Amino acid sequence: MGPEEALDRLRALGFDEGDAQTLFDHFDDAERRGKAGHGYSRIEWLETLPDVDPSARPVRELEAPGFERWDGAGALGYLTLRAICDATVARPPDPARVVVARHCFPTGMLGHWVRRLADAGLVALLTATSPPRLPHPDVGPPLVGTNPLAIGIPSEDGRPIVVDVSMGRVTYGDVLAGHASAEDLVPFGGDQAHKAFALALGLQLLVESCAGEDYGAFLVVVDGEFSPSDFRERFPGLRLPGDS
Amino acid sequence: MGPEEALDRLRALGFDEGDAQTLFDHFDDAERRGKAGHGYSRIEWLETLPDVDPSARPVRELEAPGFERWDGAGALGYLTLRAICDATVARPPDPARVVVARHCFPTGMLGHWVRRLADAGLVALLTATSPPRLPHPDVGPPLVGTNPLAIGIPSEDGRPIVVDVSMGRVTYGDVLAGHASAEDLVPFGGDQAHKAFALALGLQLLVESCAGEDYGAFLVVVDGEFSPSDFRERFPGLRLPGDS
Repeated sequence: MGPEEALDRLRALGFDEGDAQTLFDHFDDAERRGKAGHGYSRIEWLETLPDVDPSARPVRELEAPGFERWDGAGALGYLTLRAICDATVARPPDPARVVVARHCFPTGMLGHWVRRLADAGLVALLTATSPPRLPHPDVGPPLVGTNPLAIGIPSEDGRPIVVDVSMGRVTYGDVLAGHASAEDLVPFGGDQAHKAFALALGLQLLVESCAGEDYGAFLVVVDGEFSPSDFRERFPGLRLPGDS
Repeated sequence: MGPEEALDRLRALGFDEGDAQTLFDHFDDAERRGKAGHGYSRIEWLETLPDVDPSARPVRELEAPGFERWDGAGALGYLTLRAICDATVARPPDPARVVVARHCFPTGMLGHWVRRLADAGLVALLTATSPPRLPHPDVGPPLVGTNPLAIGIPSEDGRPIVVDVSMGRVTYGDVLAGHASAEDLVPFGGDQAHKAFALALGLQLLVESCAGEDYGAFLVVVDGEFSPSDFRERFPGLRLPGDS
């Protein structure tokens, strides 16, 4: 599937031009970053889902100083996170805000969203839950999602740091794209896989505590007072997270 | 060193009874959880530091809705985090607060602090920076701290989930306690060590963006609306993070 076909198939699912473009931008970004599991293959996957409502719109249901709670209200998680990013850039935190999103799935490549915030000069930490796919390292069935943690750090040179770490050895997207088998979906870390499992569990219960037990997202955005902008000098010549 | 000697030596460093007890509680908790590197061995280490001011007190220098910034102001990081925990429990977030601590080192076993918040019914995510000890997985000298991430989830049965994951294969405390060599101080994850390095780097720059380039801590506390209190039923028979 090429870019044109991708956009056409999103329109054919009933999304309006703005939402089709938002979804395309995410999938295309993933393709260009070599994360095919979050790329165009997800359009074929969306076409198989029985209850996608292309007209659904996320709702900001609670707004307090330093806190917002949104509800996907039937919209795809991608569109909910895009709406949150847009609202955050339009009205930045002063200096910090926690944003919780309920009924927010799928959320895709979380680095895509924190990059957007970093491009607007905002520091962000984002996690989101997904279906249980990772078993406890000792034994048993899948218990927790791959629950990635993404961190975006603005940079004056336009090359933000974008960390985006799934707690799985592979992603479910890798499995969907045929790049890995379901048996590879275990916490990463080898003989220290208990660490990635613990992070996945902690992040999952953090989200559930704030967003309920349906899939959700938890975002912290800060208008950072200090700018560790020398980080490329501190790490000379190294490929840093988010570099293309 | 036994408990009585530990407390006596803390008093001998000049700490008043309350601070000596706070420090002892942390080190003793670490000993009892098998984390000797964060335990009594740290008292011997404190005795070697040239500039510990036992009379220093942390200062809350900025207070805004949903945000606080503290400065250790010469106090040990343990005492700064204890003061933050006490203030947070005394005036819980409504419903969320980001707390940044500048000049906050050493912070010890971060699980100790999120456990205290979880025991008070609060969800917490905490990270803190420390001296560069982890190299990039490819090559080079130590660049980032072991920068642990701790997450505490309250539980109605008094057994909170306490995740506390260092991004190092071993902790510097393990090295101090003679349980590991400095060469083991690399990002955890084996062939996926780039993931733990990315997390350590992201957490470090997150803290630095909010607290400046000296060592600091970054805490998010939420009075969670939902209680995923069934988690022990979902994970039957498993040892979960924080269980003793």
